[in-house]
Amino acid sequence: MRQLKLSKAFTLMEPGPVVLVTTRDRNKDNIMTISWTMVMDFTPVFAIVTGAWNHSFAALRKSRECVIAIPTVDMLDTVVGIGTCSGADTDKFARFGLTPVRGKVVGAPLIGECLANIECKVIDMVAKHNIVVLEGVAACIDPARKEKRTLHAVGDGTFVVDGRKVDRRKMMASRLPDGV
Amino acid sequence: MRQLKLSKAFTLMEPGPVVLVTTRDRNKDNIMTISWTMVMDFTPVFAIVTGAWNHSFAALRKSRECVIAIPTVDMLDTVVGIGTCSGADTDKFARFGLTPVRGKVVGAPLIGECLANIECKVIDMVAKHNIVVLEGVAACIDPARKEKRTLHAVGDGTFVVDGRKVDRRKMMASRLPDGV
Repeated sequence: MRQLKLSKAFTLMEPGPVVLVTTRDRNKDNIMTISWTMVMDFTPVFAIVTGAWNHSFAALRKSRECVIAIPTVDMLDTVVGIGTCSGADTDKFARFGLTPVRGKVVGAPLIGECLANIECKVIDMVAKHNIVVLEGVAACIDPARKEKRTLHAVGDGTFVVDGRKVDRRKMMASRLPDGV
Repeated sequence: MRQLKLSKAFTLMEPGPVVLVTTRDRNKDNIMTISWTMVMDFTPVFAIVTGAWNHSFAALRKSRECVIAIPTVDMLDTVVGIGTCSGADTDKFARFGLTPVRGKVVGAPLIGECLANIECKVIDMVAKHNIVVLEGVAACIDPARKEKRTLHAVGDGTFVVDGRKVDRRKMMASRLPDGV
C-alpha cells in the first residue's frame, strides 16, 4: 500500500463503488458492505447511510472511527458474503480470509486485499436521516494490484463492473479542484 | 417513456451514475450536473449535495421540486457541458438541444433524451451539510433506448462507463426488498 494524497481520496468514492467499511469495538473488528455513500466535499468528506440494523453501527458510534476499503471485481463474492452475514455471530476477517492491516491514524483496520483504503473520523451524525458524516484523515492505494475495476451495486442483487474510462480533463479544467 | 414502479427507482441511482437535475423557477427551466448523490431508502429517498454555488439551488429551494434525469454514455459531452456553464446566462435545454417533457407530478421538466427520469419532492434540507433530501414521487424509463450504459464521474475530469453486469440475486435474495 502506498500513501495517497488526501486531496485525491474523493476520486475513489465519487464513481459510486460499493465499499467495505471496517470498525473496531475494543479489540473486535467488523466489516459491513455499504452501497449508500456520497462524496460531500473534496477535503474529503463523505456520507454513508447506516443505522442500528447494521451490527457495526454501535462500534462506529462509540469509536467515531472507521475505514472505507474499496474492493474490486475479483472480490465480488466477498462483498456479497460480508453484506449477507452479521458481525454479531461472525468474525468476518477470518471467514472471508481478509487481512486486517494497521492504519496510520484510526484504530479500525484497513483491509489488505482491497485496492484502496481511506481512514475516516466521524465528524457528525444526522440521526433523523441515518446519515453518518465522515472525514478522511489518511488514504492509501495498492499500486501493484492488477485488478482495479470496482463494482457498482444496482440494489436488485446485480452489480455493474467498471468498463472503459473516458477523459474530459481539458473540457473540465476550469471546474477541477487543485491537487487532483 | 414508460412509467417505472417507484419501488424500483432506487436501482437507477444506487450504482452511482452522474445525473442531471432539472428545476423550474416560474417558467424558467434549468439543469445541473450532479455526481454527489446517495440512495437513503428504498421508498425511494435520495440525498444530493448542492448549494448556492449552483444557479439551480435557488429554484430548488423555492419550488421544493426537481427531476433527476439519468444520462448515458452517448450524452457525455452534454453532461460535461451542462456542468461547466451556468443557468444564470444560459438556457441549457436550448444550448444542448434537450427536450423538456412534462412530468406527472412536479413542475420541473423531464429530459426526453435521458434513459430515465425520477420526479422528486424536496422533503428536507440539511443546511449544515448542503444536503438536500429528495423523495421520488414518479419515475419513468425509455425501454426503446439502445444505449443504456451510464457514466460514473471520477472527479478528476475522467469518467468510467458501465461495463458488464454480474448477477448475485440468489446469494442476496434474503436481503433484497420486495418489488425490486
